[in-house]
Amino acid sequence: MPQDTQPSPAPASQPDPVLASFRKSIDNIDAALIHILAERFRITQAVGEYKARATLPPADPDREARQIARLRKLSEEADLDPEFSEKFLRFIIDEVIRHHEKARGG
Amino acid sequence: MPQDTQPSPAPASQPDPVLASFRKSIDNIDAALIHILAERFRITQAVGEYKARATLPPADPDREARQIARLRKLSEEADLDPEFSEKFLRFIIDEVIRHHEKARGG
Repeated sequence: MPQDTQPSPAPASQPDPVLASFRKSIDNIDAALIHILAERFRITQAVGEYKARATLPPADPDREARQIARLRKLSEEADLDPEFSEKFLRFIIDEVIRHHEKARGG
Repeated sequence: MPQDTQPSPAPASQPDPVLASFRKSIDNIDAALIHILAERFRITQAVGEYKARATLPPADPDREARQIARLRKLSEEADLDPEFSEKFLRFIIDEVIRHHEKARGG
């Protein structure tokens, strides 16, 4: 068989096909994350409005502690660093607080 | 009708049922987020190992810029603050870099 029938390596300008496949999965996952986060913020916005109407306090430290404990446990089961899941929840809660402050005209 | 047949308000010790329902949705969403993130880190770990084997550079600023532009667009469509989606991707990428540094024995 002549050597030129063998697949030639992709030129440097073409993306690596293995890397391109990984990136497609990451892009799909990121789109899922964005849409799930959008829904989460829709719910926390409704919670903020409900708490204001029902004159419930905006923050609930006991609830937060339970959420963190639960997410750390879920993370361990999913082989994700529990420290990261706690950082992640705090990152999201900070954004929720920012939204509530903005809604209050801040 | 005697007044005592009317539903009495939940005692202060009992959780508000509307709030409890919102929180159930948030807890379901958070479990989904944790599992999707766990899968994302599994893929970025494989990417890190592949890049090391294929002697590809660990960072790719063009790819990051394309990811950010795409997520900002998806966020707008999902009614999520595009600034937040960019902050979120940077938060995740920082964690990926931390994982890679740890894997390199840092």
